Amino acid sequence: MAEEGKVTFPMARGADEKPTHEELEDGSRLMLDFTKLQKVAATESQVVPVVAQDVDTGEVYVIAYANELAVRTTLETKKASFWSTSRNELWIKGKTSGNYMDLVEIRINCEQNSLLYLVKGPKDNGTCHTTHDSSKKNRSGCYYRKITDAGALEFLPEKK
Amino acid sequence: MAEEGKVTFPMARGADEKPTHEELEDGSRLMLDFTKLQKVAATESQVVPVVAQDVDTGEVYVIAYANELAVRTTLETKKASFWSTSRNELWIKGKTSGNYMDLVEIRINCEQNSLLYLVKGPKDNGTCHTTHDSSKKNRSGCYYRKITDAGALEFLPEKK
Repeated sequence: MAEEGKVTFPMARGADEKPTHEELEDGSRLMLDFTKLQKVAATESQVVPVVAQDVDTGEVYVIAYANELAVRTTLETKKASFWSTSRNELWIKGKTSGNYMDLVEIRINCEQNSLLYLVKGPKDNGTCHTTHDSSKKNRSGCYYRKITDAGALEFLPEKK
Repeated sequence: MAEEGKVTFPMARGADEKPTHEELEDGSRLMLDFTKLQKVAATESQVVPVVAQDVDTGEVYVIAYANELAVRTTLETKKASFWSTSRNELWIKGKTSGNYMDLVEIRINCEQNSLLYLVKGPKDNGTCHTTHDSSKKNRSGCYYRKITDAGALEFLPEKK
């Protein structure tokens, strides 16, 4: 008999699995990449995790990484900037898409090893690079799916 | 002449600096630990970053790390759980202090390499291990200081 509340569904993608962007971003199968931080560290980037949050709605848009250059750039330009650990370069969010996140304030945690960017997101568009199926607009943030009790991913309704 | 908006203050702690808990947690000097992620990766923990957010107030409480065991434990117990990368063990937040964070929902980002725990914090206490100077109560969350334009850390007022 299964232990009460025991979670038995698969959670991580396999080591040899290379899911497509579509499977990852628009799929309903849970396949977490638990190797992410080791990959980040392997780039030898000295970075801290950063969460970007909308100062008005409280929505968490994204967790990303910042090195010292990214934090300086954020403070100087007042645009949320990160270090792209995949491209290994400064990433001024919105520079390509136009969907900047305007910085209001940077907060720091007790142990000074992570940051919270309080931002105002783009007025007419979202901050995630993925788009809603229906409206084709960018999603407001990256956390648009929840894990169900059965271990599937369920899409949250589009915000009005 | 200084470039306009140029941020010139020191940002990171020195490689040989070993600040005390008090300097880190209750000080007003910015000394980010940019080596954090490399330390995490060095433990060979396969973890993703997790942000825990209050589902009612929207407050970001903490950024921590979770491996598969921590995510399963969170789903099974409905208490936010992490992987302690310093102690290298499962960390059911609140198990020692009693200040549990009750899980409402886990959300996942577009690329499936980070998590958002939506939680209800303890009613009568905060979730951070640090305490307010005045009331001696635990702070509600870990992001109780902001970085000023001069690069100092400024304490935010205690929430009522």
